[in-house]
Amino acid sequence: MSDTDLFMQAAIEEAKQGLAEGGIPIGSVLVYQGEIIGRGHNRRVQQGSPILHGEMDALENAGRQSAQVYRDSVIYTTLSPCCMCSGAIELYGIRKVIVGENQTFMGAEQRLRDASIEVEVRQDAECIQLMKDFIAARPDLWNEDIGV
Amino acid sequence: MSDTDLFMQAAIEEAKQGLAEGGIPIGSVLVYQGEIIGRGHNRRVQQGSPILHGEMDALENAGRQSAQVYRDSVIYTTLSPCCMCSGAIELYGIRKVIVGENQTFMGAEQRLRDASIEVEVRQDAECIQLMKDFIAARPDLWNEDIGV
Repeated sequence: MSDTDLFMQAAIEEAKQGLAEGGIPIGSVLVYQGEIIGRGHNRRVQQGSPILHGEMDALENAGRQSAQVYRDSVIYTTLSPCCMCSGAIELYGIRKVIVGENQTFMGAEQRLRDASIEVEVRQDAECIQLMKDFIAARPDLWNEDIGV
Repeated sequence: MSDTDLFMQAAIEEAKQGLAEGGIPIGSVLVYQGEIIGRGHNRRVQQGSPILHGEMDALENAGRQSAQVYRDSVIYTTLSPCCMCSGAIELYGIRKVIVGENQTFMGAEQRLRDASIEVEVRQDAECIQLMKDFIAARPDLWNEDIGV
């Protein structure tokens, strides 16, 4: 397995952990110089949080970092980042976003590209299945998470 | 004092509380049907948080709300919302943003307007002074907060 596959796998493990906790299965890891410095998953259900999407939780768990660290970091997320998470990624100038899939939800990827942030979309079968199953089972919770 | 002045005052009180805690003086309140349902201030220093800007903290403290509540809410913030906070406001479709000032920092206001969110800027003297003094005293911390 390549390093990038291992990092996406870590994000998927976070998503699965969220699902096991009764939450929304979206996970993320922040990687700096080949090491995971923050990992997280959506905490809407678990912590009653409207802001802890997977990417936000990974950034939060990485703690305070210098601009230089962010600019040399890559964030992995199992699902295309919404406008809040994309805004956070843009704020800190994270250089690259690796997206598990954008078939079940298309986030603000174009906005990231417009900000010169590289976006790579995998269309990973496991990421797609996790969201498909979840949206079918809990459309109410999913809609709440994307403000619908 | 009008209601909107009282709500901006509440956001300023949050900013001052943050300053008293050794933090970055930016505060926010979320108002639904004439009542504050969430209040918050920047927690970078206090909680080592890169995501708890004032607006994010107010949203977090309001907890999980339905799309209908957000769409009928107004958010007050002492400083123009950055791209992360604007993204969160856009995600939840908050109908209006009342901004204390945008002279010391211009956030993603145009993006909000493009998303049909009303933006009203006050250029409040107290909000400007709070940020001017803070940026002069702690440029390092301020730059960290805006990813510079």
